Formats: sequence, structure tokens, C-alpha cells
Amino acid sequence: MLEELLAARLDRGAPETLAHQLYGAIRAGILDASLRPGQRLPSSRQLALEVGLGRNTVIEAYARLTDEGYLVSRVGAGSFVAATLPEQLLQAAPAPRARRRSASPGLSRRAQAILDEVAIEEGGAFAPCVPDVTAFPFALWQRLIARAWRQLRAGDLRYAGPGGLPKLRAAIAAHVQLARQVRCTPEQVVIVNGAQHGLDLCARLLADGGERVWMEDPGYPGVRRVFYASELQVQPIRLDSEGMAPRAADWETPPRLIYITPSHQFPTGVVMSLRRRRALLEAAARHDCWIIEDDYDGEFRFSGRPLASLQGIDAGQRVIYVGTFSKSLFPGLRLAYLVLPEPVAERFARAAAQLGFEGRQVTQHALADFISEGHFAAHIRRMRLVYQQRRDLLQQVWEKELGTLAPLSGGDTGMHLIAALPAGLDEQVAVRARAAGLVAQPLASLYLGRARQGGIVLGYGAVHENDIARHARALARIVKAVLKSG
Amino acid sequence: MLEELLAARLDRGAPETLAHQLYGAIRAGILDASLRPGQRLPSSRQLALEVGLGRNTVIEAYARLTDEGYLVSRVGAGSFVAATLPEQLLQAAPAPRARRRSASPGLSRRAQAILDEVAIEEGGAFAPCVPDVTAFPFALWQRLIARAWRQLRAGDLRYAGPGGLPKLRAAIAAHVQLARQVRCTPEQVVIVNGAQHGLDLCARLLADGGERVWMEDPGYPGVRRVFYASELQVQPIRLDSEGMAPRAADWETPPRLIYITPSHQFPTGVVMSLRRRRALLEAAARHDCWIIEDDYDGEFRFSGRPLASLQGIDAGQRVIYVGTFSKSLFPGLRLAYLVLPEPVAERFARAAAQLGFEGRQVTQHALADFISEGHFAAHIRRMRLVYQQRRDLLQQVWEKELGTLAPLSGGDTGMHLIAALPAGLDEQVAVRARAAGLVAQPLASLYLGRARQGGIVLGYGAVHENDIARHARALARIVKAVLKSG
Repeated sequence: MLEELLAARLDRGAPETLAHQLYGAIRAGILDASLRPGQRLPSSRQLALEVGLGRNTVIEAYARLTDEGYLVSRVGAGSFVAATLPEQLLQAAPAPRARRRSASPGLSRRAQAILDEVAIEEGGAFAPCVPDVTAFPFALWQRLIARAWRQLRAGDLRYAGPGGLPKLRAAIAAHVQLARQVRCTPEQVVIVNGAQHGLDLCARLLADGGERVWMEDPGYPGVRRVFYASELQVQPIRLDSEGMAPRAADWETPPRLIYITPSHQFPTGVVMSLRRRRALLEAAARHDCWIIEDDYDGEFRFSGRPLASLQGIDAGQRVIYVGTFSKSLFPGLRLAYLVLPEPVAERFARAAAQLGFEGRQVTQHALADFISEGHFAAHIRRMRLVYQQRRDLLQQVWEKELGTLAPLSGGDTGMHLIAALPAGLDEQVAVRARAAGLVAQPLASLYLGRARQGGIVLGYGAVHENDIARHARALARIVKAVLKSG
Repeated sequence: MLEELLAARLDRGAPETLAHQLYGAIRAGILDASLRPGQRLPSSRQLALEVGLGRNTVIEAYARLTDEGYLVSRVGAGSFVAATLPEQLLQAAPAPRARRRSASPGLSRRAQAILDEVAIEEGGAFAPCVPDVTAFPFALWQRLIARAWRQLRAGDLRYAGPGGLPKLRAAIAAHVQLARQVRCTPEQVVIVNGAQHGLDLCARLLADGGERVWMEDPGYPGVRRVFYASELQVQPIRLDSEGMAPRAADWETPPRLIYITPSHQFPTGVVMSLRRRRALLEAAARHDCWIIEDDYDGEFRFSGRPLASLQGIDAGQRVIYVGTFSKSLFPGLRLAYLVLPEPVAERFARAAAQLGFEGRQVTQHALADFISEGHFAAHIRRMRLVYQQRRDLLQQVWEKELGTLAPLSGGDTGMHLIAALPAGLDEQVAVRARAAGLVAQPLASLYLGRARQGGIVLGYGAVHENDIARHARALARIVKAVLKSG
């Protein structure tokens, strides 16, 4: 097999980079015809997993081979050994910096890494990360927007000051203190255009290219994309039942950033234990790392012991708390926030404003009113009951159909849970589910390192009460059939 | 002088990086006491200019010296030689990778470069880049927003598809074809959150860290910030009366991206000649570069021969056209657009959506209606007359007061022009203007390389007709006084 051939030719002790070695190994395979013209190569993601290399390493090797004419890349289809190799390639080593010959230049390597990252599936019942937007009180919202326009001052049409509208920063500070025990002043709150934008700012304003960021594995592909765009080195860190579990060896090369979802790990649903939180804060202080706490659905907690935010127990001023209105109100709003440690908040907000300019003050006025007049808390309370009812229905039907065959976990919070499956079967379930118009995101697809745990992610947020039993039964039957045939 | 001392110690032929050499030179100066404890160092910007180094080089050297305790940095005040140097620093070379000791980790080097970049002045008459938002028909706009909310479909609350709302992409494609002779289909239009966001996407999806980007010099500091954030190497290219004028030697190390403002160069107002446009397109094709055409105020052309967009005469599919509604409608709207070459448009739009997620579809509906119902064209026509009247008034008063002492140029388009001054005097004018509540952005502040041309930028967009003569007279008198004393 190709993977074995390549693995045999890589030497981690050699002075050449692994990307260069991989490039050489594939090139040698093409020149000695063990790789045939037209042959399809594995995706960079797949090869990285198989050979145990970083994704960027494979992308770099593929890009160079493509630049030099050994590979051709077809959009949506992958990379292939070139059908006809230019004569001179077979006679001599190619010029080291051969330029691309295409009609227009290509996208960057980081763009390619963004496009290659796995997609969260959508367009069917149980798609993950989809809140129910039909329940949003949009008539009320529209009245608040109209009122903000009526009360308009000319300054509202200009760029916003650093950090966003003071009134909204204050409303958010009050909310997160009460709801999530985040300790902050309004000056520590920075309004952003969605959580991805906030993470993007963290990646660039807190880290430089080539620096290391740790992520729980499995994790959210969208966040990995943000880190690729900033050329950070994404290092997957294993999870256990208490949350992210770095080994002593991991700390020998400490990261600049640690990205975690402690309230409801995405996708496993693990809640980080208090002991682990304390240990992580202590180690981060010792190694001088920033911790990014993404609390993407922490507002929807149904059961289990509630834990305060990690930010709330940090004495070292190194936690950045990320909250969003995408799940609690609606995704298209594009408003989220960061809570920065006091010593850097002002400079961070200023750099963010200078990098991207801010505005949308009318919408920010409306949101501030929505929060401070109590509508936000009321909507959260209402939706918490809706989601809890959907989760309970899904659990009842699932357990009735499958007993203990594909046990559920991770449902104390949020709008998804996990059904465990033997490793290797989750992809089969996903394929059959898709054919039935359902979504069963395989857990294996969300790992960056080698997948350890089999299962599927069941997003129930946007599946109506009247439909959930029917869809759950259909998916449970698919699971049963795959388990039987596997 | 420090600058001379340092320049003498730098050797561009040496194998060490210039940042490392600069670090060594400053460190040696501290250790041999030619730099005294507590002494303030020049800003990274100033030192880079004086010694002829890239800004990032100086930032890197300062950051390392600060990390290692030789310098201390005070927010807003700059960098100083540490008052007391730790004993061991005087005895031995510091450990090569000493960690920072601060209570929380610092911002990244790129954040520091963003913060160190010059600010465009604001808060007074003649501040550049400020459109008049008081003339915006916001009652009409509010009706369109309210209508979009009434016609809401649930999908409008979710993330938008790649590229933005199809209806808005189509309206923009029709507009730019007519108004700017941009050739495109709606599928080539990508909606972004302001021009800075669009440029940010270009920097990351079209180039990788360390690649070179050319910019006209002088140029817009906000764009430089975007490129620093993506760790591109910003290379200033000289301007002449026909626009960006790269030398043959510049083409020996061709860039990945070329950023230009051909319709109305910022800040000089030079319009790129057709001959220069053709030459640049031809050279870019030969060297396989992307060209980013920023048409930030091209809609407001009053006089001179109108030229089509560069995109419209590009046969090589390598121009990305950037348009914005910040100047033509209002900055706080945060909507702008890119027009991508057809071969990469789909993948670019997909990568952009995956990186940042998009939404705000209700606002996009309203803007599409505003354009397609003719309100946009009407507003442009109205504002063109307003701005032209303000420009004419400013010119009349200025020439009456100053004759040919500080000649105006660059006013055929847009909402600012340039008053030429002898080099070195523009900073003095700026200081006195500020004391009088006026803004006179010095041209020297906008150069990245060594400044060549003295002058001040006069933004007249937001200065009302009734005030312009009074403010222009006040500023002209300051100029006269400085010219007399200089």
C-alpha cells in the first residue's frame, strides 16, 4: 500500500523536514512507477492520519508536487499523478522554485487547508449545531430594531469605537456575571461578528504564525480552520472523562494557546471536572499560555451539576471567554463577544478595531435593549425547556429501540448528544442515514489525530417535537441494521 | 545618534537576520552603556524609517530585548532601556528562548505591529476618509429594513450560503458593470463585512505567511495592518504621476499580491494611467501575481477623464476588485464586496464562508432592494454633487489664501485632496492644526519607506458647505505661518 511505502521512507530523526521527505518519497514513487500515471492519491487529511503526519505537512508536499507538475489537482476530486510527465522532469531534478503555470494563480496553502477540513453535515434531521430559529420572537426583535433606527444619532452610522457599543458591552458583562459567573467589567467585553471572528482575533492578536495551539481531540473543524488561516500549529490533545488530558510529555513543548470547550465539549459533551480545570489553569500559568474558553452552548444546561465558567476561577488573568448569540438567538445575527483579561483588554480591543473596523451600532443598540429589558433571559428559559423536551424524547425512543446497543452520552447541556458505536461502523451509519434524508455525523470525522472512539453526533436542536420520535426510530433502525451486519 | 550607531553595526550581507543583528547592536549598546538606563528608544516605526529596515524587523528585535529584560515597554509611551538590568544579564548571554515573566502573556508580534501602525487622524474638520452620513436617507432605509423583516423566511435567520445573498450579489454585479465597467457574473461577487474584511480574506486565501505584497508608497495604514496580521511581507513601491511604478529590480523578486488604488490613489489622488495599467497587468501575468484593485471611492468622480476599472481590462483573470458601501452609504453598515476571477470564485467564496460564517441576510435583502429600486444610484448622484461643491469651495478659499504656496492635487475623485508642502513642514502644520481643532494628516506619516513628498491630506467629505470656508481659511493661515517660520 502507498501509506506503508511512504511511512517506510520517512525518518523523523533526519535533518530534512517531513514535508520535504514526503515530497521526495512520492516523487520517487512516481519516477520509479510504483505510483502510476492517473492514480488518485489519498486526501491530505486521510494520508496525514494514515502516516501519522500533520495535515499541513502533507498539504505542503502535495502543493510542491503539484507546482512541479508531478501531481494534478482536480477541484472536488482530489490529487492525481500527472498523466504525462514533462520530459525534463524525468531527466533532471526540477528547478527548486518552479512557478505555477495556470491561467490565474492558485489559492494559498492555508486556503487549501481550510477547504480540505471536514464539513459538519447539514440539511437533515439531527444535523449538529443547529438551533431552532423558528421560535425566535422576531416581531419583538423587529420592533427593537425599528426603535433603534428611530432613536438614531449620526454617530451610530459611523464606525463603532474599540470593543463595540458601550451599552451592549455593559449588558453582556451583567449577563455573563449572573449566568456564567464570568468576572469582568464592561471594558473587558469585546463585541465581535460571531464566535469564529472572535477566535480569529485571538489567533492573530495572541499568537504568531508557527506557534502551537492545543485543541481537544475530537473537536470542532470550524475552529481548526481559523487556526490554519493564522498558520498556527494545531496539536490535538486527547480527551478523557474529565476533559482535555494533556500528558507530561505534551507540556515539554508548551503551546501559546489552549482552546477548550469545558462546559460541554464539542462533540463528546464531556464536562471538564473542577480538578482538571484547576490543574489546567495552574499548568497554563507555569508555562505562560493563553486559554480560550469557548462556551458555545453553555446557556442550555438541563441536568448534572452546573459549573461556573473557567474564567470565573482563573486568578492568573490568562483565560479569554468566548460567548455567542448564534445558538441562543439566531446564527445570522452575527454577534458574539469575547471577555479579555483586564491587562490586555484595551490593547486587544484597539488592535481588533484597527484590523477590522467595527460598526452595526443600530443592531447593537437593539440587542442591548433585548438583553437589559429581560427578553434575552426569557428566551433562554423558554428554549431551555424546548431543547430539554426534545432531548428527553430522543433518549426515550432511542433507548426503547436500541436498549444499550448504542448508549447516549453528553446530553446534560446544549443541543446535541453522542450515541456510541463500535469504531469503524459510524461512517456506515452516516452513509445510510444520508440516503434516508437524516444526518448522523460520525465521531471519527471530527478527530484530527487517530480516531479513538466510535459514535455519531445527534443534533436535536432543530428537530420539532412532532417529528423527533419518527426520525429517531428511523435512525435507530439504521444503527441496528449496521450493528447486525458489522 | 542612536540611528547612526545602529546603522553602522548592520551588515546586509551577513548570514544573520537583520532582526538578530539589530537585537545584538542594541544589546551591545546597553551593555557598553552607550544606551543609558531609562533612555527612551525611537518607536519601531521611526527606527525602521531611520535605519531603512522593515518594521517587522524592528518589532522582532524589540520584542526579544523586552522578553529578555533589556527593554521595558510602557503602554502608550514606548520602549525604554530597563532601569536595572538583572545581574546575570551583565555576566552572560541570556538563554536563547527566555519566556516572558509578566502576569499574563503578551499580545503577539503581529498585534504589536497593528498597534504600532500610524493612525488616520479623526475628530476635526478635514479628517480624511470620512463620508457625510447625515445626508443618508435613513427613513427610507429603515422602511426597507422593516419590509425585509416582514417578509422574513426562517432561512434568513441562519447562516448565509457562500458568497452572500444571491439577490444582493446580482444587484452588485449589475451595478459594477454599469458604473465601473467591471466584468462579472453574480457568482463572482462575494459579500464581505467591509473592505478591510475583504482584503483580509484576500491576504489569507491568496497568499501564505512570508510571501510578499506590494503596496503603493505612501499608502493606507489600515491595509498594511491587514497584511501584518497575515504575516505577509509588505514592500513599499514608489509612485509617480502615472501610479505605482515598480523598477526592473523590484520584479527580480516578484510579489504574490499587488495592492493598488488605481482610480484615486490613497492618499496622493494620482489616477493610474492606462499605459501603466496595461504594463502592470502584463507584468503580473508574466510573474504570476494577484492584483487587488481597491476602488474605495471610485463612485465619486467629478472631473478628469474617467477610466474603467482595471478589472475590466484584465484578460488574465488575476484582478480582484474591491468595492465598499462604507463611503457611498455609511461606514457602520459593514457591507462591502469582492469580485473574484471566475476560476477561483467558487472556492474562494466557500473558504471564506467556512472561515468566518456569514449571515445578516435581512440587511442584505434591504441593501439589494435599495440598489435594485434605484435608491443607490440616486444617492450616489446626490452625494457626488455635494462632495464636488465642497471640493470646489475648499479649492477657491485655499487658492485665494495661499496662491501657489501649497498647491492642491488629487481631487478629481473622492472626498480628499492633497496640499503640497516642503518636506518636513507637514508635521508642524499637523501639530498646529490639532491645537486649533482641525485635522491635517501629514503625508509623511503615510509612507512606509523613506518619505519623498511633503504635504497634508485634506478630507472634505464630512465638512458642511456652511463651515468649509471658515475652516479652510483657518488651516491656510496655519500653513502660511509655518511656511514663513520654516
